[in-house]
Amino acid sequence: MVYPTMPFLFELSENTMSELKNDRFLRALLREPVDVTPVWMMRQAGRYLPEYRATREKAGSFMDLCKNAELACEVTLQPLERYPLDAAILFSDILTIPDAMGLGLYFETGEGPRFKKAVRTEKDVADLPVPDAESDLDYVINAVRTIRSALNGRVPLIGFSGSPWTLATYMVEGGSSRDFARSKTLMYTQPEVMHALLGKLAQSVTGYLNAQIRAGAQAVQIFDTWGGALAWDDYQAFSLAYMKQIIDGLIREHEGRKVPVILFTKNGGQWLESIADSGCDAVGLDWTTDIGLARQRVGDRVALQGNMDPATLRATPEVIRSKVASILERFGPGNGHVFNLGHGITPDIDPAHAGAFIEAVHELSAKYHEAG
Amino acid sequence: MVYPTMPFLFELSENTMSELKNDRFLRALLREPVDVTPVWMMRQAGRYLPEYRATREKAGSFMDLCKNAELACEVTLQPLERYPLDAAILFSDILTIPDAMGLGLYFETGEGPRFKKAVRTEKDVADLPVPDAESDLDYVINAVRTIRSALNGRVPLIGFSGSPWTLATYMVEGGSSRDFARSKTLMYTQPEVMHALLGKLAQSVTGYLNAQIRAGAQAVQIFDTWGGALAWDDYQAFSLAYMKQIIDGLIREHEGRKVPVILFTKNGGQWLESIADSGCDAVGLDWTTDIGLARQRVGDRVALQGNMDPATLRATPEVIRSKVASILERFGPGNGHVFNLGHGITPDIDPAHAGAFIEAVHELSAKYHEAG
Repeated sequence: MVYPTMPFLFELSENTMSELKNDRFLRALLREPVDVTPVWMMRQAGRYLPEYRATREKAGSFMDLCKNAELACEVTLQPLERYPLDAAILFSDILTIPDAMGLGLYFETGEGPRFKKAVRTEKDVADLPVPDAESDLDYVINAVRTIRSALNGRVPLIGFSGSPWTLATYMVEGGSSRDFARSKTLMYTQPEVMHALLGKLAQSVTGYLNAQIRAGAQAVQIFDTWGGALAWDDYQAFSLAYMKQIIDGLIREHEGRKVPVILFTKNGGQWLESIADSGCDAVGLDWTTDIGLARQRVGDRVALQGNMDPATLRATPEVIRSKVASILERFGPGNGHVFNLGHGITPDIDPAHAGAFIEAVHELSAKYHEAG
Repeated sequence: MVYPTMPFLFELSENTMSELKNDRFLRALLREPVDVTPVWMMRQAGRYLPEYRATREKAGSFMDLCKNAELACEVTLQPLERYPLDAAILFSDILTIPDAMGLGLYFETGEGPRFKKAVRTEKDVADLPVPDAESDLDYVINAVRTIRSALNGRVPLIGFSGSPWTLATYMVEGGSSRDFARSKTLMYTQPEVMHALLGKLAQSVTGYLNAQIRAGAQAVQIFDTWGGALAWDDYQAFSLAYMKQIIDGLIREHEGRKVPVILFTKNGGQWLESIADSGCDAVGLDWTTDIGLARQRVGDRVALQGNMDPATLRATPEVIRSKVASILERFGPGNGHVFNLGHGITPDIDPAHAGAFIEAVHELSAKYHEAG
């Protein structure tokens, strides 16, 4: 697959950006009527696609791929060539901010992300700079511009960031963790140091997402991957409070259109009511939540995004179709649903199964939108 | 610490078993009045205790320790010597049943449990025997008798088992897993094979827990460690349904006293209502659940057990005390609370902090029981 190169795209102004041909995704996030339920997949540009693996090979390391705007654009668009997806998502990593703070992100095969420097003390936190997204994370902002231009109005582009708590766990642990021993110890023994770190991260994420919006992101998602590891009251104080700060500081309208915010706390199903009160437009759900009950709980405050177990994609297309049908039925008729998996698609999935999933969402959802 | 050896204890009849000196734990599980909130800790006989590490050293491997009734008794009683705990729990492993089915359980350092043989096909499942607990798991049943006798009525003894779904994941994966790829694939592609496996496991667990009860366990807990990784509807069909089968088949009264059943699904906080309807007497909560809301949701159907984040034990005794106070306050006055951690205590905890936790529960809870 070859995409045109666009040498002049950084000079495109907002006004030259073309009209959206498919705005189902944005409409559903704002609980407006749609013809069918829009669908995208977390990690849709990923290793399950042979064309992704080929581009990745060409790029070098994973971070080389993230830092090359043209190749990042290429992989972002690959799943859209295969499937009638209703949104594209910026190809990047959630740990770009701590990397820009000077911690030295790297990836060890089979080990997940690591940092050369960890953040452990009050001084470590005080010494962290708040990055300027336009200059310190210019490779991400360039990628947003490149992708937005290449999309040419086909579907909306989603920008994203990790949540402050999620970023903090990687920074304090120095990488991935099973039980967040160091982050929770810091939180319980020196809460003021953890709050200082989270405050800096909230400020950084706000600037980062706003730069993505100015560069062309038409919706943004905050990935709170590890908020669900916290006690319910610690979640409020150490994760949700900082996501609220971010949402309060975001550009909510751009290019004459609302920029919806999706908040996704994995394992946050117990806290939907307070997440829905955060100021976000949509709440992401993992597969442990009954989306029908979730809709009753949040009422018409927010849209819902989700929530099929990505493991279902290992089953036959018939089983996938029946799971899609069951989630659509639980949500029921009416507006405010963006279909997605409950977490990222895994590398072992047959691309044909992903196709069956997307097709099933569009085909089976039409009847729930007829009245609208 | 030295405990008397009891060469004749296998001949003790039920009638010679002494009266309970402290039955707070059993009373709280049945929502009866108590003077203070009873407390125990999951994995209270564990590596955080130097005396445990010494006995473990003496025993050889972890499974050698489980299989030696006298040493298993010794480590079971160690935390009771240090702390005024209100219950003892059988020292054993959750994977004894698959081991007795012939899968060859072993432990690799830093790797967690592994099986020599995994269960992957319809034939693998058909070939699995249902173990007879009295003969095939006699080392566990002997340990129950030994411990019960050594306790001499000091506090009640808890027996336990892994849940069918939790055991099945280890058996299908061949050990621990992060995303349960093989178990979920089997569940989605050959649900009838997974149901056959779970049916055999439910039958095995029922016999195993009943043998523990006959040997002297005064309450039993089902550990559904991985039920929370399932989609909400799959949880009902593949985990909760089989735990209900077990509960239906359990001896519910023994030695003239009710034998309460505790059901603990980690990450099951969204499903409390249906767990409370399973027939169990108490529901275990992890730290992600607000115990005050949980009490409202389950009403007077069941008691609640939990739910401090074990990571809190890394904080100072003052912080631990304030977290205990906050959980007691959320639960509020009245009966039906057994205090515990939301998961097992970890090896890095200072034993003095565990002591501060237990002391805080007893001291701070008294005022909530005065009216009773």
